Amino acid sequence: MSPAQGIRNYMDIWDKRDDMVVHGTDPYNAEPSPCVLADRTLTPLDAFYSRNHGPIPDLDPASWRLTVDGLVGHPLTLSLEDLRSDFSEHALVATLQCAGNRRADLIKVRDIPGEDPWGPGAISTAHWNGVKLADVLARAELCPEAAHIAFAAPDVSDIADPPQPYGGSIPVAKAITGQVLLAWGMNGRPLPRAHGAPVRAIVPGWIGARSVKWLQRVTAQAEPSDNYFQATAYRMLPSEADPARTGPCAGISLGPVTLNTAILRPDDGARLRPGLTQIAGYAYAGENRAVARVDVSLDEGGTWIQADLDEQVSPWAWQHWRTTADLGEGETVITARAWDTAGATQPESARHLWNPKGYANTSWARIHVTCHS
Amino acid sequence: MSPAQGIRNYMDIWDKRDDMVVHGTDPYNAEPSPCVLADRTLTPLDAFYSRNHGPIPDLDPASWRLTVDGLVGHPLTLSLEDLRSDFSEHALVATLQCAGNRRADLIKVRDIPGEDPWGPGAISTAHWNGVKLADVLARAELCPEAAHIAFAAPDVSDIADPPQPYGGSIPVAKAITGQVLLAWGMNGRPLPRAHGAPVRAIVPGWIGARSVKWLQRVTAQAEPSDNYFQATAYRMLPSEADPARTGPCAGISLGPVTLNTAILRPDDGARLRPGLTQIAGYAYAGENRAVARVDVSLDEGGTWIQADLDEQVSPWAWQHWRTTADLGEGETVITARAWDTAGATQPESARHLWNPKGYANTSWARIHVTCHS
Repeated sequence: MSPAQGIRNYMDIWDKRDDMVVHGTDPYNAEPSPCVLADRTLTPLDAFYSRNHGPIPDLDPASWRLTVDGLVGHPLTLSLEDLRSDFSEHALVATLQCAGNRRADLIKVRDIPGEDPWGPGAISTAHWNGVKLADVLARAELCPEAAHIAFAAPDVSDIADPPQPYGGSIPVAKAITGQVLLAWGMNGRPLPRAHGAPVRAIVPGWIGARSVKWLQRVTAQAEPSDNYFQATAYRMLPSEADPARTGPCAGISLGPVTLNTAILRPDDGARLRPGLTQIAGYAYAGENRAVARVDVSLDEGGTWIQADLDEQVSPWAWQHWRTTADLGEGETVITARAWDTAGATQPESARHLWNPKGYANTSWARIHVTCHS
Repeated sequence: MSPAQGIRNYMDIWDKRDDMVVHGTDPYNAEPSPCVLADRTLTPLDAFYSRNHGPIPDLDPASWRLTVDGLVGHPLTLSLEDLRSDFSEHALVATLQCAGNRRADLIKVRDIPGEDPWGPGAISTAHWNGVKLADVLARAELCPEAAHIAFAAPDVSDIADPPQPYGGSIPVAKAITGQVLLAWGMNGRPLPRAHGAPVRAIVPGWIGARSVKWLQRVTAQAEPSDNYFQATAYRMLPSEADPARTGPCAGISLGPVTLNTAILRPDDGARLRPGLTQIAGYAYAGENRAVARVDVSLDEGGTWIQADLDEQVSPWAWQHWRTTADLGEGETVITARAWDTAGATQPESARHLWNPKGYANTSWARIHVTCHS
């Protein structure tokens, strides 16, 4: 079997388009091409980015149980049918974004060994349905000492040190907002195996890593999860730190997502005819904020054009934007930046955001295009 | 009377230190020198920055009444005694920051006519006590259509077009959090006349403009306030806009404050001896976030030193930071930037944040010092 055939077979298992940008197959990590993401508020299932840390579990929905335990008055064991029948169904549109989205631009500054070079496609948006985590926790009766809600899954990751099943946690304050779902549906269809069937957590506004797939256990506890992917990974280390030498709990534990944008059209490196060209992309403000404006520049920030911004379909969804610009002969650097409702905008340069694990690249989006008539 | 004597007389009325940086006396606008703010979590009353839009009202606490009206089931008229006796007293430490804080660095990029050149001192922190606005609104029984809570004061501003009493509004979602106070006390003393006696709003995490002083009326309404200082001022216009030609509701209405930092010691422009020098400042993350790290650079961002950061005394308070650096002979640019708990950091350059009214300068803090042995 050729490598190309091997990847195609994986694509079948994962139900993804053939033109995904595949960073690895074991575990499977892939993002859609920028042009596939453009203009669509909801990302089709076969294009939704896929970030994994271990092999894909194959859980039987009939025998699957969710354990709710820890600092609760009434521990629960719930079947999928229990979730469906005992709690109100709830739905929302939420964007998920990997903490490593746009890492490729950080790697151009300085190499980041051991981490995949995600482009601007480690982000996607779906309509999710399920039940509110808040309702399940209310049924379990959280103890006052419960400060964090930990999620546990069965996918054992060899990336972790030591190897361990995937997990993570969110603060109780977020868990009880009613925004966090235990979801079994995605874009009106049953949650696909590749995206966490039968049930996954959806934590809107937070890094994708907290929206734990193949969820099996929800534990109320006093401290954040000590799982590798909470305590050691997904932390923003200072640029001079050596991740091989930093222990757990170093750096900033990433959780809420902050303002970001990317250019999805034209393609980076495109060769075009000079003249009026549509430029399009997404902007996402993450937790507690909304996108207020998107600016596009053809002169690296000397002057800006305001892009047309789509309405936000939910407080947890990205917004697509577009504008038309007259591109001249030769090379043009197209730059985009977003502003949020707090009046914050993005840092200019990936150089100043470089960090040893390559997270949270929120610098201005930049692509290069060349026009010849 | 000489101008200096005139300012001293104003200082007496306002109970401020003699060394305030006074931007104007009619209305009175003044900030403390950076070194006065340094290291103190609570700003002394005589150093707390003062931002006004009209003459200072002189309200008799005995006859003062607060009207609560609009979209409420039970309009209220409350005396100071009613507030004290009918509601639970509540206290919090909160930083207030003017939207124009650090405007001086924007003015260095391009002039901003008609706006004061605030340095890094248009920010201060106090311990406030009073009652929760949420409790008062609960008593008045908000109607479901109420989406905004407007504050009205009697200080008529000639700056407004047309001249009008000062006012503004916040969304109901913020107003009912329990974080917003109707405050009559400041740092353990009765609220001074200069800071809004007998009662002012305190809206933690939001621009100071919403913490309306000399509060007389609280109105629940479906739309944001149409007061000049909400609809026209305190809005972030795109850099190319002409504020004389933009009407109400242009740009981004500033509300929640975003991540900022400043260097308070040494003074900008200081002449020092070479050698170990303490560098100190504040960082403030504003609404819904906390400061996670502060970096200091002596080479304009090439390399960074992590500063020691004080504990946060409340979710709404700035944090002071300090570090020691070895300064060499000649001129050094000292740069500081903060990171927040969402992994966001500040934009590099004031040049790219310039906006026609000079708001929300959140760029890296920079001072120049010169060392000679």
